[in-house]
Amino acid sequence: MKKIIITAGGTSEKIDNVRKITNSSSGKLGMMIANELLKYDDIMIYYICSKQSLKPQDPKVKIIEINGTMDLKNTIEKLLLNEKIHYFIHSMAVSDYMTDYVTSLNKIKESILKYSNIDTALSHIETIKDNKISSNEDNLVIVLKPTPKVISIIKDISPETYLVGFKLLDNVDKEELIRVGKILKDKNKCDLVIANDLANIKKGNHIAYMIDHSIEEISGKDNIAKELVKKILHQ
Amino acid sequence: MKKIIITAGGTSEKIDNVRKITNSSSGKLGMMIANELLKYDDIMIYYICSKQSLKPQDPKVKIIEINGTMDLKNTIEKLLLNEKIHYFIHSMAVSDYMTDYVTSLNKIKESILKYSNIDTALSHIETIKDNKISSNEDNLVIVLKPTPKVISIIKDISPETYLVGFKLLDNVDKEELIRVGKILKDKNKCDLVIANDLANIKKGNHIAYMIDHSIEEISGKDNIAKELVKKILHQ
Repeated sequence: MKKIIITAGGTSEKIDNVRKITNSSSGKLGMMIANELLKYDDIMIYYICSKQSLKPQDPKVKIIEINGTMDLKNTIEKLLLNEKIHYFIHSMAVSDYMTDYVTSLNKIKESILKYSNIDTALSHIETIKDNKISSNEDNLVIVLKPTPKVISIIKDISPETYLVGFKLLDNVDKEELIRVGKILKDKNKCDLVIANDLANIKKGNHIAYMIDHSIEEISGKDNIAKELVKKILHQ
Repeated sequence: MKKIIITAGGTSEKIDNVRKITNSSSGKLGMMIANELLKYDDIMIYYICSKQSLKPQDPKVKIIEINGTMDLKNTIEKLLLNEKIHYFIHSMAVSDYMTDYVTSLNKIKESILKYSNIDTALSHIETIKDNKISSNEDNLVIVLKPTPKVISIIKDISPETYLVGFKLLDNVDKEELIRVGKILKDKNKCDLVIANDLANIKKGNHIAYMIDHSIEEISGKDNIAKELVKKILHQ
């Protein structure tokens, strides 16, 4: 039995009790990869996704819904520590940033007037902590901080797992896409990286580059799913 | 034939090409109100909602998907100017804020160091304009500005339309909820306001106050939908 983790869709980062920062990822590619894998016997999939994500429907798929990046990180760590995972297909669009605090331009100004040192002022800005932030501020300000790089922990915990990373850029040329894809691959010890461009996807023309020791160009979401599954199961 | 506009779900405000600020509203109450109205003859519903929102399925319902608050405003203006609308049920959770610009704490600091006057510094912050904002900033900052108050234009354009407004607060007492509901009603010339509390909804205990010349307490989403429809069609 081969155990596979697929992450799909996008994370959402809480701002307050009703507002959040999300991204537009639908989870479609992740679902197509899952459906492609399900054509094989002896497969078990953990499908980690957001509530809004498209999801495969199959008894061999265990759906795990997560919200923010911290939630994703904890879920992955627990799975990798407790089970032998053969393949990890990390197609989820993970937020680079999460909410640090909420304030306003007025409160930033007040802080600058109060403290003579700028760094002190910027690290002592009064925050707005209402559960549901009021609508009375002229300029509300959301200060974000980087999320932990989830992809980097996978090989650290489980070096034997075959790791597929994804890189999405916007409106760059082929060379740049492949260059950045290779950096992701080396940095996180991915066995394979799929690099694609948002501008192409929006034009309905989904071209991706599958990067391992060689580089293969593939066109169309269905072909990307098919070629990826063929590649990893028959390596 | 009675023409009805229902707005439902939540708006989403774009940050860049992949990120947006959304809210957690599912559109469930809006859908239930629509389904209740569809039990009557001679009804036609324009259902304005977000892509993610729950939607009624019926040939008498025309679904209009919108994204941000500006999009909602334009859609509503066009409809109200071109058609006679009998009822407007505005249950959508409209964002109070939309993105003004994106910057970073570092760029705010640079601006303060550059200009001696604070107001000049805060109005000359360098913005980050990448289509998809890079992940290299230590502290990304999203500065928001208020959205136009969509509910206030409805009676201005179409004084004859019966307007139902909704107010959602978080964890306040009954008196405060009714007080704020009445302010919404007077300010925007609503004929009826439904005021509810997020804390109750999360507990699975959806209590709402239906406010016109009298105040009625209703419990449960299905009862809210039923009582609302009964009230407006038999007034």
